[in-house]
Amino acid sequence: MDLDRLVADARAGVPRAVGRLISLVEDGSPRRRELAATLAPYTGHARVVGLTGSPGVGKSTTTSALVTALRADGRRVGVLAVDPSSPFSGGALLGDRVRMGEHATDPGVFIRSMATRGHLGGLAAATPQALRVLDAAGCDVVLVETVGVGQSEVEVVALADTTVVLLAPGMGDGVQAAKAGILEVADVFVVNKADRDGADATVRELQHAMSLQRRETGPSWRPPVVRTVAASGQGIDDLVAALDAHHAWTAEHGRLAEGPRRRARAEIEAIALAELRGRIRALAGAGSPDRLAERVVAGELDPFAAADELVASVRG
Amino acid sequence: MDLDRLVADARAGVPRAVGRLISLVEDGSPRRRELAATLAPYTGHARVVGLTGSPGVGKSTTTSALVTALRADGRRVGVLAVDPSSPFSGGALLGDRVRMGEHATDPGVFIRSMATRGHLGGLAAATPQALRVLDAAGCDVVLVETVGVGQSEVEVVALADTTVVLLAPGMGDGVQAAKAGILEVADVFVVNKADRDGADATVRELQHAMSLQRRETGPSWRPPVVRTVAASGQGIDDLVAALDAHHAWTAEHGRLAEGPRRRARAEIEAIALAELRGRIRALAGAGSPDRLAERVVAGELDPFAAADELVASVRG
Repeated sequence: MDLDRLVADARAGVPRAVGRLISLVEDGSPRRRELAATLAPYTGHARVVGLTGSPGVGKSTTTSALVTALRADGRRVGVLAVDPSSPFSGGALLGDRVRMGEHATDPGVFIRSMATRGHLGGLAAATPQALRVLDAAGCDVVLVETVGVGQSEVEVVALADTTVVLLAPGMGDGVQAAKAGILEVADVFVVNKADRDGADATVRELQHAMSLQRRETGPSWRPPVVRTVAASGQGIDDLVAALDAHHAWTAEHGRLAEGPRRRARAEIEAIALAELRGRIRALAGAGSPDRLAERVVAGELDPFAAADELVASVRG
Repeated sequence: MDLDRLVADARAGVPRAVGRLISLVEDGSPRRRELAATLAPYTGHARVVGLTGSPGVGKSTTTSALVTALRADGRRVGVLAVDPSSPFSGGALLGDRVRMGEHATDPGVFIRSMATRGHLGGLAAATPQALRVLDAAGCDVVLVETVGVGQSEVEVVALADTTVVLLAPGMGDGVQAAKAGILEVADVFVVNKADRDGADATVRELQHAMSLQRRETGPSWRPPVVRTVAASGQGIDDLVAALDAHHAWTAEHGRLAEGPRRRARAEIEAIALAELRGRIRALAGAGSPDRLAERVVAGELDPFAAADELVASVRG
């Protein structure tokens, strides 16, 4: 595989080249390292917008409506639909692809489902790398949509420059949001399906919860609550305006580097931990995880002592 | 906190003591190590049954119906509802608790939602520890129900002695199951909501997919497909029989130790990786993750070289 050629094609916007490069990082190819170096000069332009929320709030529909609005504005858009390594999420992703079908022939849109099965920190490592591919391919905005819920997705959302948390009326999400601390991660709230009963109550709950938050010292961004009916496109222009307002605020306050730094930090930590996990799994003989596990089951060793042995072994 | 007293109370079946001990492992208490040693003599009896499947297939209803059936049979039952560290899953868990309400006053049932927020391998480490608490408390069977889907849950399901994969008609799950390789992890399939249209098709798809599987060399267990309508209790006795048949087969083939070994292995690896992650995050100065991330953003270092530095630092 000619990496320079693929990167050149990706920069020219050839979808197949973009797809092959993302597959390469997703599969954990040994050439990821070379790719990172090759892409480096062409990155740093794209803004990353994360969208998350419970199943059923309308993340895919909102993502699709956002793509339409951003394209109408002449911006190049990438979409990464993140699958938390689940054997069950195939269905949802097929659904996404169907709903995204209207953008399939638009050369200004790249859509990709990410599935990194089984390897630790897989998403945390692969997502920033896939974002660099889309960045180098000329995307102005990359939407990272997390399907479902889970630890992995929360980590992925933390990689965004702007994080959008979606809620829908009648799901008890407002209260849960307040309890679970998602107020702190959201830069923009969307109350989707805002034509349904209970939308006002959801907005009120959110605003109340925000009013109780402790203020940061110094200037702080106050997350707006945008009402949308993504299925009809209603409110999507307001959402685009809110995203742009957050970006402008970030720039004004000298914080544009924070997102890239968070992504870099998550990526290097994930790569390092994957490497350490590989070393643990490669341990052989009496110090191997299998043999230590047998001794734990036999009652000869407690699990913490066994873990100490693993740590000592990888530390050499 | 008097750990010996709490363990004695837990062994006597005092729910509050069981709950406090599980909180202790869930919170990553430094006394987990002492607890593991204290519990060790009293464990090794409980069978662990994992239940998983897409949202909407009826996992909680099935779990609740199983509890009823196992209790009617005189068995003590534990339930761990596993929450993959999500800020959004609170709602679903509240739902579980409501549905489990009918068992709330039964002293032979312990029900617990597990939520381990943010720490790597949290579930993989804490779940086996919570299982030991329930084991020592005299549970004959512990049902581990994973809410939603995600990498963490798949890891948790791999901890079970018997893994139940639930499907429901009309969700396209049969095909997805075949594609995603869940045939290999399931010991028992449940087609729930079997009174709905499409149940026969789902059963046929599953059986077809299984017929295409490569046979293991040596004796292999052939996962039965059980039809249930968990909401009315229909088929639940068949499910209990299938679980017992799998247990009996495992015993006959000398494989009873495999589940405990898998749990021990996952646990010690998770504890070791959490320790290594802690060491990475504690690195200070020029070799700290934050400083390395800044150099990556500045283009002075590629992320793989930065990760190498982290690995070298923790290896001392």
